[in-house]
Amino acid sequence: MRGSTPVRGGQAAGKTGRRPGDDRRPKGLGGEKVVGRQATKELLLAGRRSVREVLLSSELEPTPILNDIIDLADEAGVAIREAPRWKIEALAETGSHQGVLALAAPLPTHTLSEALSLSNAEEPAASATESLPGLPPPALSLSNAEEPTTSATDRPAADRPPVLVLDSVGDPGNLGALLRTAECSGVKVVVLNRHRAARISPVVAKRAAGAVEHLHFVTTGGTPSALSELAGLGVWTIGLDVAAEKTIWDFDLTGDQVALVLGAEDRGLSHLTRQRCDLVVRIPTWGSLGVLNVASAGAVALFEFARRREAL
Amino acid sequence: MRGSTPVRGGQAAGKTGRRPGDDRRPKGLGGEKVVGRQATKELLLAGRRSVREVLLSSELEPTPILNDIIDLADEAGVAIREAPRWKIEALAETGSHQGVLALAAPLPTHTLSEALSLSNAEEPAASATESLPGLPPPALSLSNAEEPTTSATDRPAADRPPVLVLDSVGDPGNLGALLRTAECSGVKVVVLNRHRAARISPVVAKRAAGAVEHLHFVTTGGTPSALSELAGLGVWTIGLDVAAEKTIWDFDLTGDQVALVLGAEDRGLSHLTRQRCDLVVRIPTWGSLGVLNVASAGAVALFEFARRREAL
Repeated sequence: MRGSTPVRGGQAAGKTGRRPGDDRRPKGLGGEKVVGRQATKELLLAGRRSVREVLLSSELEPTPILNDIIDLADEAGVAIREAPRWKIEALAETGSHQGVLALAAPLPTHTLSEALSLSNAEEPAASATESLPGLPPPALSLSNAEEPTTSATDRPAADRPPVLVLDSVGDPGNLGALLRTAECSGVKVVVLNRHRAARISPVVAKRAAGAVEHLHFVTTGGTPSALSELAGLGVWTIGLDVAAEKTIWDFDLTGDQVALVLGAEDRGLSHLTRQRCDLVVRIPTWGSLGVLNVASAGAVALFEFARRREAL
Repeated sequence: MRGSTPVRGGQAAGKTGRRPGDDRRPKGLGGEKVVGRQATKELLLAGRRSVREVLLSSELEPTPILNDIIDLADEAGVAIREAPRWKIEALAETGSHQGVLALAAPLPTHTLSEALSLSNAEEPAASATESLPGLPPPALSLSNAEEPTTSATDRPAADRPPVLVLDSVGDPGNLGALLRTAECSGVKVVVLNRHRAARISPVVAKRAAGAVEHLHFVTTGGTPSALSELAGLGVWTIGLDVAAEKTIWDFDLTGDQVALVLGAEDRGLSHLTRQRCDLVVRIPTWGSLGVLNVASAGAVALFEFARRREAL
């Protein structure tokens, strides 16, 4: 993956006064181009990033989500511009833009401790179905209605949202799918290895369906050191590996804040990353193939952690 | 989706002596082109379909999986031909062919009762990790070593593999991902709505990583009638719907054979399909998005069923 990482100005890289190890990925995490209706709506809804403009294809028929985008952009004072379809196509870097593209500030990145503070300070999000009309209150919710004044650090660990660590996910579709699933499962912080994980390209952001707007990103030069840092911050790191002895179902989830650690599509966790995890588990399989796609494996593990959290 | 279904020769469709309702999809389920290394290896390993030839790009470096493909093809008496990369590219209909393409007989389809008989008669597959060296025997396995002579119909229902019903999955990547996950979770039978689900194109088969070779496919003209037929065959149908009251975690999974029913990416289950399910459940979410991608939702539900099956 190193080969595909844009490296800034060769020999001169060390002379700019940035922190050592920070001299790659000159454009940061990416995410400046937001492509597709859901992703653009979430960008405007979240309101975390400044948005330069929203481009709408001139041939679009009005739909509820397009109306939402127009209203939200108007409310935020963001310029809306009509553009021919070919222009959006050319900017989008992906065919599935649905005639909508927004240009925004890059996604911010944080240090691990910053991101955890941000994440743990947020009100735990309730189950999304809570707001659906005609339904009873959800039996499962992370919100702690009895103790609304509990501070972030005092909250029981089980209430502290899980972290996702991606050591190396090269396929943009898999990365986007993982970010979307993670957000739905309650993850707030995502740690990406800046040398081995894909940038948040338009394809990634589109597949993530707006999840990138709600996640706090940390980029790291080395996953093992990030795992040590997580341990120091009281987060229990659980790696997924097909060769692990224990399964995701046969270990005790104690109530600590947890981080799920995923490796590369083909090779799984690197040796040092595996060693540095507090626990390594596998997802049992019954078919002939025996190995899940990394996005599916992540989905199964993240929601198993969610189920356990609820049972605590 | 109807518009994208190839319809055979217009007015003459009814005059061919095929069964009524069988006059669409003249080319059947598809799957004649098998693209990529893993998919080709699984095609040859499974040995269920006749294979015309295997094309290998002339520039390939030898790797273990390529050696496996060559050995398996040789053993099965399948011709191996070197071809220039551009030719494989043109045949593959997808860029990610890894220099390997096989031409095979179309994937067979079955009636529902045929497929269930085939599925339930097969030896329950053990956890894939059982064969890994140096590991203890898996704690979780569907195999029933004490009763090896039990007939398929006498086997406890919990041993009868789950069924996956796809009412309408239009995106080839999602369909392929679902088939791979399903196979890993122990599913043997997949029911596809022939008017609304994608064919098994090279993209689908590639994403399924060989899973199509191990699954029994049923195509149906209408999902509700297939659900009624499943009920008649003693299979409990469980639909996934974001508006359901119960979650995948708060209902009793009896020992019945179950079918997971998934709807369209955007609209979910159709009204009649939802009504016809024995039970409709949702996956709780905690983020801001609130809706999982269909492939991730399928993964979470299928492995939750697997966990429950093990706990019975």
